[in-house]
Amino acid sequence: MSRIAYVNGQYLPHREAAVHFEDRGYQFADGVYEVFAVRGGRLVDHELHYDRLDYSLRELAIEAPVSRPVLLMIFEEVIRRNRVTEGIAYLQITRGVAPRDHGFPKTAVPPALIVSARNMHSKEALRRTGVAVICVPDLRWKRRDIKTISLLPNIMAKQMAVEAGAYEALQVDEDGTITEGTATNAWIVTDKGELVTRKTDRSILSGITRLTAITLARSAQLKLVERPFTVAEAKDACEAFLTSTTSDIMPIISIDGAEINGGKPGPITKRLGELYETHAAGT
Amino acid sequence: MSRIAYVNGQYLPHREAAVHFEDRGYQFADGVYEVFAVRGGRLVDHELHYDRLDYSLRELAIEAPVSRPVLLMIFEEVIRRNRVTEGIAYLQITRGVAPRDHGFPKTAVPPALIVSARNMHSKEALRRTGVAVICVPDLRWKRRDIKTISLLPNIMAKQMAVEAGAYEALQVDEDGTITEGTATNAWIVTDKGELVTRKTDRSILSGITRLTAITLARSAQLKLVERPFTVAEAKDACEAFLTSTTSDIMPIISIDGAEINGGKPGPITKRLGELYETHAAGT
Repeated sequence: MSRIAYVNGQYLPHREAAVHFEDRGYQFADGVYEVFAVRGGRLVDHELHYDRLDYSLRELAIEAPVSRPVLLMIFEEVIRRNRVTEGIAYLQITRGVAPRDHGFPKTAVPPALIVSARNMHSKEALRRTGVAVICVPDLRWKRRDIKTISLLPNIMAKQMAVEAGAYEALQVDEDGTITEGTATNAWIVTDKGELVTRKTDRSILSGITRLTAITLARSAQLKLVERPFTVAEAKDACEAFLTSTTSDIMPIISIDGAEINGGKPGPITKRLGELYETHAAGT
Repeated sequence: MSRIAYVNGQYLPHREAAVHFEDRGYQFADGVYEVFAVRGGRLVDHELHYDRLDYSLRELAIEAPVSRPVLLMIFEEVIRRNRVTEGIAYLQITRGVAPRDHGFPKTAVPPALIVSARNMHSKEALRRTGVAVICVPDLRWKRRDIKTISLLPNIMAKQMAVEAGAYEALQVDEDGTITEGTATNAWIVTDKGELVTRKTDRSILSGITRLTAITLARSAQLKLVERPFTVAEAKDACEAFLTSTTSDIMPIISIDGAEINGGKPGPITKRLGELYETHAAGT
């Protein structure tokens, strides 16, 4: 847990890190967030996160509370005060505090800004064994490209995974294709050795680890196709894996109980995982 | 604005009414709410609101923080301390405070409970003239029957209405039928004198004013049909109106600029409105 959090201009001890109950983030989920990996005390791929943050803010017409250089200074201070070396940093921006009314505040209010950080155990052991996932219906709204705090459908799906003893829930659209996990992007490797992951449109979030994995796969001459794939295709795939800021490249070894690659992480997944770890360590 | 708010066991002055930034309501929209009308210092139809609240909590597996009698005492105290006679009372319950993790907290945490109340100007003048509405695509998730704080799609749609100079945005599903407004249910009156409003399933919220209006319409021998209707049907309707806790029975006089009933509230709408005002005053 973050021992010190930045809350609207102040560095506060965890227990005092409070926001007003009329913060629109609390009453309307009117805000956005980012989760950054921290390696060696530094943010991984932070420019890519900032670009996505700007996109989310723009789509919701929320003003950026501070400039990028100031935000980076806040991150560095929060990471330093929490003595984070290997872990995550969290950022949340909301439209600010105003008397409850669905429309945007009629007089401008400053957006709220929260930054926290904490050390986290490495998931390296889990990446060596791989994880089980389940499939659940995708109940979410139609703008999944925006990284909003309106995460209720995601947590309900993730809780189904937890209760099923699985690591993640893959969300399945009405057409039978997998969109993404609750906090991860989904990938498969076909019998032709092609890496397949869904293309980015409003149906999924453009994951930062997904973006980096695409760059790494291309530079390693791996074949890559961005297209939707079905649950049946995933269960028949040679390999499957997840990408996310907290999971890196996480092998999937079963889907709804059906084993993938004999229940072991596959070779292409491992190769991409090694490339990613080298990239993240060197940021 | 609520001068005194009940926040997790304390009655606090407005500016001190804060919640922790790791309240899951703030980070995940993991909570539910209710808005009650207050008339003559008393809650209107509160048992119906409590029933719906219980349903929302059950669907999200959030524990009720207090019993109904205790909740009613808190409401009475908040209404009294804020000297509310004609206005609204607001209740929000979230899954509570826990280190950020999508799955539910592994060790039980107490749910958060917020209650506020404020006086509000009567919308009687607006109900006499009626209001304009626009139609927008319904981008929301597939469990609109739960009254959650995951309201981002609603506020984005409402803001489109505000910017168009309209009172409300009617949300339109992929099949061309109107689901509901951003904080209201939608009704039309056909040329056969039938009152039509969408039936309740997972596509809309079961509005309390909608429920009461149905009861009142039936007891007044008005013809009533619960079924979906299209935007075209609404624009061609003899009358149209909205129901909600803060709008009561609100006549619609134009949809996307197309006049309804010559731009004036219709006779059946007015009749139902009078029945509703009598009901609310007598609660």
